[in-house]
Amino acid sequence: MAYAAGVVGAAGYAGVELVRLLLAHPDFELRAITSNADAGQALASVYPAFAGVSDLVFTTHDDPALAGCDVVFLAVPHTAALAVVPQLLASGVTVVDLSADYRLDDPAVYERWYGVAHTSPELITERAFGLPELFADDLARLAERHAAGDAVLVACAGCFPTATSLAAAPAMRLGWVADEGPVVVDAISGVTGAGKTPSARTHFCSADENLEAYNVCRHRHTPEIEQILGASGRVVFTPHLAPLRRGLLSTVTLPLAPGARGLTAEDAVACYRDAYAGRSFVRVLDAGQTPKTASVVGSNACQIGLAVNAEAGALIAIGAIDNLCKGAAGQAVQCANIVFGLDERRGLPQVALPI
Amino acid sequence: MAYAAGVVGAAGYAGVELVRLLLAHPDFELRAITSNADAGQALASVYPAFAGVSDLVFTTHDDPALAGCDVVFLAVPHTAALAVVPQLLASGVTVVDLSADYRLDDPAVYERWYGVAHTSPELITERAFGLPELFADDLARLAERHAAGDAVLVACAGCFPTATSLAAAPAMRLGWVADEGPVVVDAISGVTGAGKTPSARTHFCSADENLEAYNVCRHRHTPEIEQILGASGRVVFTPHLAPLRRGLLSTVTLPLAPGARGLTAEDAVACYRDAYAGRSFVRVLDAGQTPKTASVVGSNACQIGLAVNAEAGALIAIGAIDNLCKGAAGQAVQCANIVFGLDERRGLPQVALPI
Amino acid sequence: MAYAAGVVGAAGYAGVELVRLLLAHPDFELRAITSNADAGQALASVYPAFAGVSDLVFTTHDDPALAGCDVVFLAVPHTAALAVVPQLLASGVTVVDLSADYRLDDPAVYERWYGVAHTSPELITERAFGLPELFADDLARLAERHAAGDAVLVACAGCFPTATSLAAAPAMRLGWVADEGPVVVDAISGVTGAGKTPSARTHFCSADENLEAYNVCRHRHTPEIEQILGASGRVVFTPHLAPLRRGLLSTVTLPLAPGARGLTAEDAVACYRDAYAGRSFVRVLDAGQTPKTASVVGSNACQIGLAVNAEAGALIAIGAIDNLCKGAAGQAVQCANIVFGLDERRGLPQVALPI
Amino acid sequence: MAYAAGVVGAAGYAGVELVRLLLAHPDFELRAITSNADAGQALASVYPAFAGVSDLVFTTHDDPALAGCDVVFLAVPHTAALAVVPQLLASGVTVVDLSADYRLDDPAVYERWYGVAHTSPELITERAFGLPELFADDLARLAERHAAGDAVLVACAGCFPTATSLAAAPAMRLGWVADEGPVVVDAISGVTGAGKTPSARTHFCSADENLEAYNVCRHRHTPEIEQILGASGRVVFTPHLAPLRRGLLSTVTLPLAPGARGLTAEDAVACYRDAYAGRSFVRVLDAGQTPKTASVVGSNACQIGLAVNAEAGALIAIGAIDNLCKGAAGQAVQCANIVFGLDERRGLPQVALPI
Repeated sequence: MAYAAGVVGAAGYAGVELVRLLLAHPDFELRAITSNADAGQALASVYPAFAGVSDLVFTTHDDPALAGCDVVFLAVPHTAALAVVPQLLASGVTVVDLSADYRLDDPAVYERWYGVAHTSPELITERAFGLPELFADDLARLAERHAAGDAVLVACAGCFPTATSLAAAPAMRLGWVADEGPVVVDAISGVTGAGKTPSARTHFCSADENLEAYNVCRHRHTPEIEQILGASGRVVFTPHLAPLRRGLLSTVTLPLAPGARGLTAEDAVACYRDAYAGRSFVRVLDAGQTPKTASVVGSNACQIGLAVNAEAGALIAIGAIDNLCKGAAGQAVQCANIVFGLDERRGLPQVALPI
Repeated sequence: MAYAAGVVGAAGYAGVELVRLLLAHPDFELRAITSNADAGQALASVYPAFAGVSDLVFTTHDDPALAGCDVVFLAVPHTAALAVVPQLLASGVTVVDLSADYRLDDPAVYERWYGVAHTSPELITERAFGLPELFADDLARLAERHAAGDAVLVACAGCFPTATSLAAAPAMRLGWVADEGPVVVDAISGVTGAGKTPSARTHFCSADENLEAYNVCRHRHTPEIEQILGASGRVVFTPHLAPLRRGLLSTVTLPLAPGARGLTAEDAVACYRDAYAGRSFVRVLDAGQTPKTASVVGSNACQIGLAVNAEAGALIAIGAIDNLCKGAAGQAVQCANIVFGLDERRGLPQVALPI
Repeated sequence: MAYAAGVVGAAGYAGVELVRLLLAHPDFELRAITSNADAGQALASVYPAFAGVSDLVFTTHDDPALAGCDVVFLAVPHTAALAVVPQLLASGVTVVDLSADYRLDDPAVYERWYGVAHTSPELITERAFGLPELFADDLARLAERHAAGDAVLVACAGCFPTATSLAAAPAMRLGWVADEGPVVVDAISGVTGAGKTPSARTHFCSADENLEAYNVCRHRHTPEIEQILGASGRVVFTPHLAPLRRGLLSTVTLPLAPGARGLTAEDAVACYRDAYAGRSFVRVLDAGQTPKTASVVGSNACQIGLAVNAEAGALIAIGAIDNLCKGAAGQAVQCANIVFGLDERRGLPQVALPI
Repeated sequence: MAYAAGVVGAAGYAGVELVRLLLAHPDFELRAITSNADAGQALASVYPAFAGVSDLVFTTHDDPALAGCDVVFLAVPHTAALAVVPQLLASGVTVVDLSADYRLDDPAVYERWYGVAHTSPELITERAFGLPELFADDLARLAERHAAGDAVLVACAGCFPTATSLAAAPAMRLGWVADEGPVVVDAISGVTGAGKTPSARTHFCSADENLEAYNVCRHRHTPEIEQILGASGRVVFTPHLAPLRRGLLSTVTLPLAPGARGLTAEDAVACYRDAYAGRSFVRVLDAGQTPKTASVVGSNACQIGLAVNAEAGALIAIGAIDNLCKGAAGQAVQCANIVFGLDERRGLPQVALPI
C-alpha cells in the first residue's frame, strides 16, 4: 500500500527531480504534479526523458487532488510556500517544503533577508529542519507525531547549506573552531542551481567556459548556514557559478581554536566518521582525498574531504553533493521516508553514474 | 536465487557501466570484476562513485571465479575476446561479448577490417547478434538452448550500429529504400565513445569546444552497419566527436525507392511504431519531433525521430542513445535478461535524469 | 584616414563580433553601434569583455549617425533589413547585410521560405553575394562601382551555407557530382548559432551534454545552399546543435558522377587547392586529415577536409568555421575590405587560440 | 628592426600561447621554438590552428639558434629551468622564465616545496619578479641594466599567484588586513592549468561535469603567494578544478584590521583604482560587480571585484584572468616589453572574445 504523494511546482528543476525519484519509489504513488505555467501539458512533452514512461499531466497549483494526498512536496519559490503550507496542514496533509519559507528559526531574520513579513511564524516552532544527518531528533519527533495521526511540516535545508553544514557542523559541534574570526565558505554550483527560467546568465553562451562569483555577501543562504552552524555574523559566504549542470562543492575554511591546533587530518576524519556513523548517504573520505561532484551526481550521497593547515591554524572541510538530489529533491524524499517511518534510504539512488 | 555474473574488462567505461547495472540488478549477483591494469585496487578507489557502496576489488582476467559464473560479460578490446570466449563456453559459462570479435557474419570481412585472422569462426554461426529489437528470433533461439543447459554466446552490437540500425532498419525492411545510391550515416558521439585511455584527443582541452569528424570512410562499424541493414557497399559512415560525455546521435539519410516517394513522416512514424510494438526501450517520437541524447542518457532507451524530404526523395531517420548503456552495457544486460528467460527490462533504467 | 562604420543590431552575437573586429581594424572607425533593446547602455556593461577598452554606448536603430557612415553593417533578424537597406543606400551609405533578406536570387523563393513578400526585389539584382572565395567577380564588380562613388549592397552568406559551400562548391563546379540523388548536408553548430535571446533551448542545462537535430527539412538555409551549389531540390540539410559556444562543422556527402568514380582523396585535395589558390582564409587539409572547429574559432579561417568512399561512390567534404566570424562578422568585414579596395585580410584574425 | 626571440618548451600550453603572441608581435621575431618531445614536427601539425599561417618547426632544447636570440622565454617544468638559465645568461641572452625556479626569494623555501637544492641561488637576487603591476620598480631596474647591455632574468609569477595577488596585494599594502588569522584563497582554474600531458584527471570524461579541490594545503603556489603578500604562514590556499579550458578565478577573503572595519566596497574600489592607475591590463570593477573569466579569456587583462562583509569583518577580493595569458605567456611578453623599453601593452590582446 503506497502513500499518495503530490508535487507542487513539479516543472522546475527540483520539482522534476522529485518526480523522477517518486516515480521510482516503492512506497509513494505520485498522484498530482502541478505547474501553473505548464498546466495541461504532459510531463513527457516538457521533459522528453519521460516519453514512453509516464502519462502524468501537469495541473494547476489548486488541483483538488492535493488535499487527498498523504504528503505534498513543495518546490516553489520562497514566499509562495507561505500561502500554501497552512492550508495543506489544515487539510491533514503532511508537507515537505523545499522553499526557504520555514527554514529560519527567527521570523525577523526571514524578513530582513527575504523582504516580506512571515505570515505563519507559529508553524516555524513546530516544523522540523530537513537535514537528517544533523537534525535527527527533530525529524524523529515529527515521525512520532505523524504516527499519531498529525499532519506535520518539514522545512528542507537549501543546497548550499546542506553541503556546507555537512562539511562544517561536526567541527563546530566538537569545539574545534575558534570563537572569533570569519568562517569562510566558498562554494561552487552547477547551473541547475540558478533554476529553469531562461535568462542572460543561464544562456549556454554566457555560462559555458566561464567562472564567476555572484551575490557576494548577500546570498540568502547565509543566515541559514549561520543558524545551522551556530556562527551568527561570522559566515563569509561567496557562491560561484561554473559550467556544469548538476553538482555543488562547498569549501569551508574554519579557524582552529587554540585547543585544537594540534588536530591532524587523520584525527578529523576519524571523528567525522564517528559523527556520521550509520548515515549511509554521508561518506567521509580518507585524509588526503578530496571529493568530486561527479562522484555523487544523480545520487543522494554527500562526500566529505578534510585537511588541516597547521601553520595557518585552519581546518578545510569540503562537501560535494548533487544540488538537485541531496541538495533538494533527494533530501526531501529522505525526510519524507523518516516521517513516514520508512528506512531513510528507501527509493533513493545510492550511486552516481561512475563516468 | 541470483545468477552469478562476472565482468572482464570492468575498469573501462563500458565495463564500469556493466558494474553499475549489475550491482542494481535483482537477478544477477556480481562475483568478479577483472582488469589487468587495475587488479588489486578497489572499485571505489578507481571510481569514487562507488565509495561506501561496494567493496568489490578488481582481479586479473585469469580470475578462476569467472569459470564459476553463470554468465560473463566481456568488455575488452577487439581481438582480446577471441582468446577468451572459446574457453569460457567450454567451461559452461554463457558469454555476452561487447567486443567486435563475433559480430560480423563473414570471417573474411572481419579480417579485412580488423587486420587479424578469426581463430574461432565456427562460433559465429552459433552466436546470436545482440540487438534485441531487430534480432528477436536469434535471441529467442539462444534462450531455448540456454534453458536446455547450453552455454551460449551473444555478440552485442556496437554503439554506432545500434543507434543507426534502430533508426534505419525498419525503413530498409519495409522496402522504402532505393536499391542504389549512398546510405549516408552521419553520427555524433560523446567522448566516452573514445574509451578510458588518456590521449591527446581525449584531453579535456582538445575535446572541449570542438567538433570534428574522424576515421572518415574507415571506421570499423561500417561493415557492421552494412550487415545489419543489408546494404553492402552502400553505407557512407562519418562519425563525429562532440564535447559531451555520454550520448550518441545517428542521423541516417536514405534515398527513397520510386514506390515510396509519396511517404509522409506521419506514415513513417505509424509504421515504425508497429515495427517496434511491445519493445519498451525504443520510443518513436511524433512527426515533427526530434530526439535529444539528454533524454536518454543513463537509461537503456533509444528515441527515434523521422522526417521526409519529398522533393529530394529522402527519409531522414535519427536515433539517440546513451552509447554506454543502450550502446554497450545496457544492451548487454538486456540480452542476458532474454537469454536467462527474464523480462528484458529487468534491472535496467527506464528514465534518464530529466535535467 | 579611416572609413566611418556603423553596426545596426550590435548587441546580438554577430553584432558584437562585428564590434570586436571593427574596434581592432586599422581602416574602419566604429562610429555608431545600435540596439533598440540595449540603447543607452554602455557596450562594456552589456559585454564586460570591453570594460576598460571602449566607451561606446548603444543607440537606437534610428541613430542619425548611421547616415554619416561610409559603411553600415546590418546584424538584424531577417525581414528587419528590408526596412533599412533602401534608406541607407539612398543616403549614400554602403551596406553589408548579414541578414537573409537579400541573399536569395528569386524573391518568390524568399517568400516561400520566409513567409513575407520582398519589398525591394530590384536591389537583389544589384547586390553582390557575400562569400568572397566563391563569388569573387561579383564583389570585384561592386568594388568598381564603389570606387566610382556608388553606395553598394553586399548580402553576406549565412553560417551553414558558408561552411557547406566552401566544402562542396568546387566539387560541383568541377563536375564531379552525379546529376541525381540527394546531396546530404549534416551540419553541427555551437549554441551561439541560436542567437542571444534566452530560451528553454539555449538554457545551459538544456544545451549542455546534449545532441539534437532541429528544423529537419525546414531550415531556411536550405534554399541558400541549393542556390550556391546549383542543386535545386536536391539538398537534404539537417542541422544539429552541440554543446559548445562557437564553431560550425558541415559534413557534405556528394554522390559521384560516373565519370568521377575513380577520384582519389589526393586528387580532390590537389584540385581544391587549385580552386582556392590565393585565398588565405581557406585551408585545404592533406588527405587523411579532418578539420576541427577548435582550430578556427576566433579567426576568419575555414578548414576543409576531403575523403572519398570509392565503393559507395561518394565524396565526403567537410568544412569547419567559426560561425560568428567566417560565418558572419568576419566574412562581412572581409567583404567590406574588398568593396573598399583593401586587402581582404585587413584587420581580420588569422589564427585561432591554439588551445 | 625586430628583436630575435625563442621559446623553449613551445609545445606545452603556455609555450604555444607564447608562440601565438610572439607571431603577432610587431617587435619580436620568433626564430626558434623547441620541444624535445615534438622536435622535427611542424607547429601546424601539432597545433592545427597554425595551418596555413606559420611554417615553424619544433627543434630540440639544445637548438644553437637560442644563443643567437635577444630573448628566450622558458616554458619548461620547474627544475628544468635551473639547468638552462645560467647558460643562456652567460651567452648574453635575456631570459624570461615562466617556471617556478627563480620565483622564491629564499632558496631554502624553494628546497622545502620543490624537493631539490637550488643550484644558482646567486641569480635570484639579481632577477626581477615578473608581475609588473606589483613589482614595477624591480622591472624598471632590469630595463636599465638591459639598456646598458646586460642580459637579465625575469622570473614570472605563477597563474594562481598572479590573480590572487592582483586582487589582494593593495589591501595588504594599504594596511587594511588584520595581523593575524588565515588569509583564505579559494581559486578555481580551467583544465589548461593542469598542462598538456594526457592523464586520467585531464581526460574529458573525468573533468567534464565535475568540480573538485586538489593539492589542498600542499600546492606549490602557496609560498609564492605568501611571499608576494608578505603573509608568511597565513595563506590557506585551496585550488579547484572546473570544466572549462582557460580561465582562473581567485576569491580571497581577508580579515579586516580593527582600524579598517569601517571600510566600504566603494572605498575599496576607489583605493584600488588609485593603486592601479595607469596599468591598463588591470580593471577594477564597480562595487557590486563581480568579474567573469569569460570577460578576459584570450586577453592579458585582469578584472578585479571587491566586496566587504562588515559584520564578519572581511574584505572579499576576486581576481579573474586567463591562466595562459595574463597567468603565463601574456605576462611574460608584458615583462619582455618592459625590459626591452617598449610600451608594456605592445603586441598583447586587450579584449577577450565578447561571447
